Amino acid sequence: MVNIALTVAYRGTHYAGWQIQPNAPSIQAAIVKAIAAVTGETVSLNASGRTDAGVHAEAQVANFNTDSTIPPQRFALALNTKLPRDIRILSSVAVAPTFHSRYDAQGKTYCYRLYLGVVDSPFYHDYTWHIKENLMVDAMKKGAEAFMGTHDFKGFMSTGSSVKTTIRTIYRIHLAQEGPLVTLSYTGSGFLYNMVRIITGTLVAVGKGQISPEELPAIIQSGERSRAGITAPARGLMLQKVFYDNPYIS
Amino acid sequence: MVNIALTVAYRGTHYAGWQIQPNAPSIQAAIVKAIAAVTGETVSLNASGRTDAGVHAEAQVANFNTDSTIPPQRFALALNTKLPRDIRILSSVAVAPTFHSRYDAQGKTYCYRLYLGVVDSPFYHDYTWHIKENLMVDAMKKGAEAFMGTHDFKGFMSTGSSVKTTIRTIYRIHLAQEGPLVTLSYTGSGFLYNMVRIITGTLVAVGKGQISPEELPAIIQSGERSRAGITAPARGLMLQKVFYDNPYIS
Repeated sequence: MVNIALTVAYRGTHYAGWQIQPNAPSIQAAIVKAIAAVTGETVSLNASGRTDAGVHAEAQVANFNTDSTIPPQRFALALNTKLPRDIRILSSVAVAPTFHSRYDAQGKTYCYRLYLGVVDSPFYHDYTWHIKENLMVDAMKKGAEAFMGTHDFKGFMSTGSSVKTTIRTIYRIHLAQEGPLVTLSYTGSGFLYNMVRIITGTLVAVGKGQISPEELPAIIQSGERSRAGITAPARGLMLQKVFYDNPYIS
Repeated sequence: MVNIALTVAYRGTHYAGWQIQPNAPSIQAAIVKAIAAVTGETVSLNASGRTDAGVHAEAQVANFNTDSTIPPQRFALALNTKLPRDIRILSSVAVAPTFHSRYDAQGKTYCYRLYLGVVDSPFYHDYTWHIKENLMVDAMKKGAEAFMGTHDFKGFMSTGSSVKTTIRTIYRIHLAQEGPLVTLSYTGSGFLYNMVRIITGTLVAVGKGQISPEELPAIIQSGERSRAGITAPARGLMLQKVFYDNPYIS
């Protein structure tokens, strides 16, 4: 029995999300099916976390146990021949039997992209949130500082998940503008359900002048979902990197 | 009667090309349908040129005559409400009654994108040609010089179009690499059918060392299609800009 970790890139547009669902296509189901086609086994496939419908991943990490004698590093190539074009295995590697992609994750980087312009872009539509108004990006950068560090992010969570604690640590939020694209990059120990999308919605409200950067500490402290901004659309979100104490997972 | 010029961006992935076809979706048909929904008229819509199935446009130009009293510049907004997400009208403007988007075009810029990597990208797949091998980009830059200027491009044309002359002028070919993406940008007076894709296929052969840059002048002069490279896939091609003696068309 070998425990194999996969690094997976996917375009979430045509999927109901990572997790297997009864009557909708999912990334997990597609990969489990590809593994079955290659090994003849129906495996249990763990990911670092679920992603919602429409959310993308540049490097999701997932692992599964197999009795197959296929060399671990050959799995990437073998699975890619069975997978649809919008899911690609970037690498496959044998890991310790105890490795678990969710429990062992030390942190994650998500990025969220905005497309600024009067007219939406046919090319960026599936990967961005189209914003027609001009945004004050400098105010958003200032506002981002309020979220960094360790906070109770109770007000920045959608209902629908049960967690022991709503305290999380954000190590870094970085905003960069390049032409019509504004990329917000979030690195943290972990994120609550929809937390990145709600912080993004709040920072966009700051960019529009609806919330001032100075109000944010009080909004965070209030723990009230209603005082934060809207939940930014799923399609702008990308799971970019999962961090482990394991140099072999890239 | 007013003559209206549209600047149009589209993602060609789900279309059989620009031109109306009996049993396949086309960009032209989608826009003609949107104009009918807005004006009640079935117009004749000319473009600067056809694009093939899967080819994209950042700024195609098309024009049509209408009796509608809708202010010309409002057409962009009005048509976008009727069009699918992968077609966007960037601007609409009234032009001289004699203006014709094809006959008046002074030149065009196309760009072609390559994605270099062992594994294809789910995000770039529809916009690039995936090349697994490393390419010698410097040799490709050197090779590009052979195509610049005025030549008989007879050997760089697919059959299926009748043209008076196969002589064309390429003003500029520019290659740029940014991470895994190599962009080849072509500006010329006009291009023969599949000319950009065949030159790209030839330059990729140069990048792989299958053709040396020094052989290119003789290959061009021979006029033999068989001596050029393969026709690069449609999905990597983008019509980027059409040039007119008209400052109002952007």
